[in-house]
Amino acid sequence: MNLHTLFYPRSVAVVGASGNFSKLGYHVMKSLTEGGYEGTIIPINPAAEDIFGIRAHASLSEVPGPVDLAVIVVPAGLVPEIFRQCVAKGVKGIVLITAGFREIEDAGGERLHEEIKAIADTAGIPVIGPNTFGIVNYSNRLNATFTPEFSRARPGDIALVSQSGGIAHMGAFLAMRMEMGLSCIVGLGNRLNVDFSEILTDLSEDARTKVIALYVEGIDTPRRMMKGLRAIRKKKRVVVYKTGRSRKGDLASKSHTGSLAGSHETYMGAFRQAGVLTVDSADELLDTAKALSGCPFPGGPRVAILSAQAGPGIAACDACEERGLALAGFDPGTQERVNTHLPPLALRTNPVDMGPAWYNAGALNNIVRAVMEDPNVDGILLLTMFASANVKIIEGLRETLVAWGQKKPVVSCILAPEGIWDKAIRHLEREGALVNYPTPERAARALANLWQSAWLRQQ
Amino acid sequence: MNLHTLFYPRSVAVVGASGNFSKLGYHVMKSLTEGGYEGTIIPINPAAEDIFGIRAHASLSEVPGPVDLAVIVVPAGLVPEIFRQCVAKGVKGIVLITAGFREIEDAGGERLHEEIKAIADTAGIPVIGPNTFGIVNYSNRLNATFTPEFSRARPGDIALVSQSGGIAHMGAFLAMRMEMGLSCIVGLGNRLNVDFSEILTDLSEDARTKVIALYVEGIDTPRRMMKGLRAIRKKKRVVVYKTGRSRKGDLASKSHTGSLAGSHETYMGAFRQAGVLTVDSADELLDTAKALSGCPFPGGPRVAILSAQAGPGIAACDACEERGLALAGFDPGTQERVNTHLPPLALRTNPVDMGPAWYNAGALNNIVRAVMEDPNVDGILLLTMFASANVKIIEGLRETLVAWGQKKPVVSCILAPEGIWDKAIRHLEREGALVNYPTPERAARALANLWQSAWLRQQ
Repeated sequence: MNLHTLFYPRSVAVVGASGNFSKLGYHVMKSLTEGGYEGTIIPINPAAEDIFGIRAHASLSEVPGPVDLAVIVVPAGLVPEIFRQCVAKGVKGIVLITAGFREIEDAGGERLHEEIKAIADTAGIPVIGPNTFGIVNYSNRLNATFTPEFSRARPGDIALVSQSGGIAHMGAFLAMRMEMGLSCIVGLGNRLNVDFSEILTDLSEDARTKVIALYVEGIDTPRRMMKGLRAIRKKKRVVVYKTGRSRKGDLASKSHTGSLAGSHETYMGAFRQAGVLTVDSADELLDTAKALSGCPFPGGPRVAILSAQAGPGIAACDACEERGLALAGFDPGTQERVNTHLPPLALRTNPVDMGPAWYNAGALNNIVRAVMEDPNVDGILLLTMFASANVKIIEGLRETLVAWGQKKPVVSCILAPEGIWDKAIRHLEREGALVNYPTPERAARALANLWQSAWLRQQ
Repeated sequence: MNLHTLFYPRSVAVVGASGNFSKLGYHVMKSLTEGGYEGTIIPINPAAEDIFGIRAHASLSEVPGPVDLAVIVVPAGLVPEIFRQCVAKGVKGIVLITAGFREIEDAGGERLHEEIKAIADTAGIPVIGPNTFGIVNYSNRLNATFTPEFSRARPGDIALVSQSGGIAHMGAFLAMRMEMGLSCIVGLGNRLNVDFSEILTDLSEDARTKVIALYVEGIDTPRRMMKGLRAIRKKKRVVVYKTGRSRKGDLASKSHTGSLAGSHETYMGAFRQAGVLTVDSADELLDTAKALSGCPFPGGPRVAILSAQAGPGIAACDACEERGLALAGFDPGTQERVNTHLPPLALRTNPVDMGPAWYNAGALNNIVRAVMEDPNVDGILLLTMFASANVKIIEGLRETLVAWGQKKPVVSCILAPEGIWDKAIRHLEREGALVNYPTPERAARALANLWQSAWLRQQ
């Protein structure tokens, strides 16, 4: 099943488009028109002349030109007929936002589900949904969802694929706040005929996607998914957040997704065997995706902690050791270079407390550079909290960071009050110099996961 | 030792005040003058007529009126003489920002340390530092630090006391971003004669402080501190973040603070015996302090998860069970009330997926109210991700939340794109209706810690 046209349609019809704020068809039209999509947008509504200033048609069959993608937001009972119209019109993909099929678990819903599945499968039309918020493709500005704000996210190389609309929205909103770059968002919904496996196959060929972040509750065809994951793990960087660790969570997720049973541990083992990193929370998913997107893989687990203050360095030590990173032992030459800038009894053998060198930008630079060049160091944690009093000093580090950040991963917690250096940090991130986090522990966790991911894909 | 005047001085002299940006004395003057402190500010500098538009004096002895607090930022070698002048002047407290005493660990530094300690102790003058950024008291707008941006934080009831300047800055910057309210910030530095115990004793009598958040590396007098903690645990809500869990972290923290040895586990046990909650990361410290500040204690561990989308509810289930909360079994009457608003096969027995009631504000309200009134429910996790399409619905919940939030803890993850409902959430937080977090897992962790804290203080 080819999903290409689903994500790259030349024309999109909104079946159930509306000019009434209280209808989902309004918000889908808003997303498409405001999102910057450059293809043709075609509202379908038998009771309106035009919607969002675009001429509406009474049905798909009345549309003069071709329709590549149909976004459907009409009541469930009408969907089989719309599907038949889609087949007749030669539609290449469907986003079925409508709910009320198998997930309501009455016989009528199940019957409708089977009916529309048969139509789509016979015609070979890939369907996202039912019961989905839709899809966003940032490379052609296609926002085929009922959430116009998705268009605000920065285009980038992270694909967010979720079995839960809530988690997808959370992920996207957090990504926006972190200014992470997204390539696409996919809400799988109730997976009529497009499941994780199909999306993974499609994304494996998507040059714009480097990282795939998955939220999983249950999997209908675990073997196919694991095979798919194993196949793409050297082409794409994948991270999975699966819920259902707890008894109640597991029960709820089975009830929610109707997926096959299967213990959480079994899934975790399978992901591991497939060479894929798993995480335990939404912010870990986002933090890890950010590091996978912005950093080269470390060659090993040996980390140097460079901190402008001792406390954050100590906090990072704890987080590193707990997550399988080792504090690097510096090469004697490196240690000598570091020592020239720090008094004898400071913390300087890793973690390095750069505090005593804090008022000398040249010294700071020399320390950072010496450690970056050390072959015993696989990755760097750079930590500093500062405010207006110290803004000139941190400026001096910029060049070294830009020059070195793509050779080894530099994961940082550079934190200042709002308005101080926010833009400089974003700039360094976009230049690939580093990835930044709000606490030393989260920075350490991201670097540890980067190493885990590198290790797993080699197995 | 009485610290009251240290935090509530009528006049502050800055010994080493400067009009030169590259001097710390400049930033201290900036903090005091821009922070809104209403007492008298007296710059001391023998080489300047006036500093920041305020008439400077050559020495403390030349100041005509009294000096309550002296903030000292002159080189270490000059400090003994300044201390003697402080005694002569009748100063009631000292903030000693200058570094270069015991922490540099040469004989001269140690000697200076002992010399100034003897002067201060004999005169009974409490000294914050040396090697500290200073103190902030939000109730009188006293920012006696080199970080003017501390003044931007919202005044509130959380005291932040830290053995690390870096962690204190991080905590304050994160608190600002979370719009948490602070009562004071204290950087203990190298603890000449004011340690955790003295601060705790002082804060126990501070009516404006409800929550005390401590960052600890090592403790010189653990028994005194534990006794102090035990004494105030029913008067104040205390949470401790202690680093040094790892081998390297432990070594680094001993080297940094020069504290007595002691395994991390011993400390953890002692905190527990003192009835005090401990946490494992900086964001957990902040998140927990926020819940302790904004919520009543739950009467037990039984939580209701009310989620507008299934996925976040399932993620919260996992986090709750892992952290010692139990999913409440609803009273039959409650379940009946919930059931009237949700279709038979939705997730409705806890976690409750309120999705099917999402377009009916009245139904949402009835569900939330029924669960809040249930005697089997000790606390509520309220989760929803929404955007412009749903903003009207969430509006309808506001009244119920305000009416109920102080009876049982309501911990939420209400997340929207920036600019949508940010202000409404902050408003609900300030009215005491709920405390909000960016992810369901962090919300669950905060509620779990609230219960842990309630439980520990009863032991």
